[in-house]
Amino acid sequence: MTTVIKNLQILSMEKENGSIKPPFAGNILIEGDKISYIGDKLPDYSKLAEEIDGSGMLAMPGLINAHTHAIMTLFRGWGDDMELMSWLEKRIWPIEDKLTDADAKAGAALAVAEMIKSGTTAFADMYMFCEQLAEVAANGGIRASIAAGISDNSMDKLPDIVDFACQYRGSADGLITTMLGPHAPFTCSKQSLTMIAAAGRRYNLPLHIHLAETLTEMEIIEERYECTPARLLADCGFFEGNKSLLAHGVYLSDEDMDLLTGKDLAIVHNPISNLKLASGIAPVAEMLDRGITVALGTDSACSNNNLDMFEEIKTAAIIAKVKDLDPTVIPAAEALGMAITGGAKALGLEDVGELKAGMKADLILIDLNKTHFAPEHDLLSHLVYAAHGDDVDTVIVNGQTLMRSRQLLTMDEEKIIAEANKTAKRLCYNK
Amino acid sequence: MTTVIKNLQILSMEKENGSIKPPFAGNILIEGDKISYIGDKLPDYSKLAEEIDGSGMLAMPGLINAHTHAIMTLFRGWGDDMELMSWLEKRIWPIEDKLTDADAKAGAALAVAEMIKSGTTAFADMYMFCEQLAEVAANGGIRASIAAGISDNSMDKLPDIVDFACQYRGSADGLITTMLGPHAPFTCSKQSLTMIAAAGRRYNLPLHIHLAETLTEMEIIEERYECTPARLLADCGFFEGNKSLLAHGVYLSDEDMDLLTGKDLAIVHNPISNLKLASGIAPVAEMLDRGITVALGTDSACSNNNLDMFEEIKTAAIIAKVKDLDPTVIPAAEALGMAITGGAKALGLEDVGELKAGMKADLILIDLNKTHFAPEHDLLSHLVYAAHGDDVDTVIVNGQTLMRSRQLLTMDEEKIIAEANKTAKRLCYNK
Repeated sequence: MTTVIKNLQILSMEKENGSIKPPFAGNILIEGDKISYIGDKLPDYSKLAEEIDGSGMLAMPGLINAHTHAIMTLFRGWGDDMELMSWLEKRIWPIEDKLTDADAKAGAALAVAEMIKSGTTAFADMYMFCEQLAEVAANGGIRASIAAGISDNSMDKLPDIVDFACQYRGSADGLITTMLGPHAPFTCSKQSLTMIAAAGRRYNLPLHIHLAETLTEMEIIEERYECTPARLLADCGFFEGNKSLLAHGVYLSDEDMDLLTGKDLAIVHNPISNLKLASGIAPVAEMLDRGITVALGTDSACSNNNLDMFEEIKTAAIIAKVKDLDPTVIPAAEALGMAITGGAKALGLEDVGELKAGMKADLILIDLNKTHFAPEHDLLSHLVYAAHGDDVDTVIVNGQTLMRSRQLLTMDEEKIIAEANKTAKRLCYNK
Repeated sequence: MTTVIKNLQILSMEKENGSIKPPFAGNILIEGDKISYIGDKLPDYSKLAEEIDGSGMLAMPGLINAHTHAIMTLFRGWGDDMELMSWLEKRIWPIEDKLTDADAKAGAALAVAEMIKSGTTAFADMYMFCEQLAEVAANGGIRASIAAGISDNSMDKLPDIVDFACQYRGSADGLITTMLGPHAPFTCSKQSLTMIAAAGRRYNLPLHIHLAETLTEMEIIEERYECTPARLLADCGFFEGNKSLLAHGVYLSDEDMDLLTGKDLAIVHNPISNLKLASGIAPVAEMLDRGITVALGTDSACSNNNLDMFEEIKTAAIIAKVKDLDPTVIPAAEALGMAITGGAKALGLEDVGELKAGMKADLILIDLNKTHFAPEHDLLSHLVYAAHGDDVDTVIVNGQTLMRSRQLLTMDEEKIIAEANKTAKRLCYNK
């Protein structure tokens, strides 16, 4: 498949003298799953190409949601403004026990559709029903890094989980990648964490774990091991010979940051979830100053309650400023970088995150013809501080067009919404 | 004009046993500028009525942006991530000196168009060029409470400002109301503040002022008067015989709150601006507990950078939780109430803020047919935690339809965007 996009603004996210290159006018040629040309001319291309008129639009790399639980989108709004334990016990656990494969697919489809509609082209997930999620993501055409969540209760399934991860990685033309998902320092024993880290090294599977999300977690780990969760993971071998994706990192001491600096890992900052659940504000500016990779995630739709990465980008930029009482902290380009370049690193996607010849064709087109994008002082600032997911007009992943003029091409949106409503009614209200 | 809207969900914002009544199915009849019927039947109505099929939509009262500087939308993205003084000196003041009446109208039109498109039906403004703003708002059909900003430099204009306020209040079928706008405790002397408060009492004009926004302001007032800004305003007579709209209130001591409790005033919380400018997080939960009216505002597009009140609602709800480390603080209904009932009180609009017979027909229709509104567990939660301004399909103010199917009916969006771009180019880049 060849696609040509003409006459648009391009924010390539390439760096030039240490800064992101400003948007420039040009054309984009996509051949197969790759970008083959970007610039103001246009080489010859197959007559069978799909042509897109990009006038009034801006192309940028797709956004990467580096921590979510897609299937839980079924529970959006099913218990807000509650204490965590009461929400889990009264709302979530009783329903999760009833989930079928079909229910999981309904939730996954809703999440994938919403992510595509708001400009996300890749996501990292931790939950159950991994085969179902992989199938839905592959059919939808989005990139997914899938990890089965593992706690002490499910350690007996570790061999199956490793089998899934080894079998599925690289499937669906490379759209699907996998990780191992030890749930959290407080739900996995030291022995479990050590075993999972060892399996990760042996099978070359990265680790996706929740880390230092709440004060309660800090207290539990301190009481159990007299150390911090980050120190515990280091002791279990997470940062030597393993790649790690560490979700949250709200509470990291200076010693923790020393531990994490220079390692092959990424912290995934989930600003909205951390605010909504009253967890805290992660010290993102300090992590970035130390050169730690920071990506952004929505967490599940239960603690957000949408999957719109543009909201995360803006929220990450503005809460960092109030945390340090300094309006110059995390400027727009840095916030956007976390959601793109940071996300690509967190997911281990080497040929994603910049628009240039040779990279995978994962890109989105933003409709600039909106009141909130005027005047055109600074498009990058507008993308960070004024944009929403609804401003995304077109989404292309791996060379395949998944959305055009806000219409999904690989998924049936109406059917997905109806199915999600039907599933939620049965699960939550026995209707 | 008679308008009938059939077969939709209605969130009236009426209270029932202390809580907001859940959305119910019904029809709405609008005659002239008022709602004449809401319910599951429908009385006879004129055959000349405009009929709207509300299937798949939810009606709710329009949102009220209780603190903004509309004309400054011209400067959106013109200097982000900067220190306040450096931004004012390098970016804003040099341009403001060059603003013409036509420029002001271009900025006002951009802001009013953006507000209508994101579901705002009334706003409170403080700036210059009040006649121009009134004209644009009246032509656009939106409600505006307009205050000329006054500082010591412009006290000689107080008589003209009072004249404007008395002449324009109630104009344009009541769409336009007015206030006096003493800029801030640190830009107006004690004498100026006292004079303006006296003028407010004499001419029955409410006061719109910035209060306790930054630590710098707290230090200046402490040094100058050995008291807090709230105490200063009390000493200048702001809270006796005056109605006041106090923007920000980020730094309020217990004694300040005692001063403000039980008075005829509203605090306008601007959560996104307070985060982006690194001002701080206002103690909103405490104010609400004391029964102080709290409304929400976007502040100007320079410190936001859009005018989407749905973002303010969500941000207000989630930052209050992290401030108190308590996820149950400011639940969804309370956050929504600030943007509607709180806003109506702040602007002194007695017949706005609920959908019921006899109230002004100021309402918006939300298109529920979106992935981020599924499953339909709790529509009120979705409006607070998942919605965006782009979900607004239809806007009606004072019985007049201003937007249908996202098309503005009283303003030319394309022309407004072009004019804003042209104006900004001339002002900021001499092009």
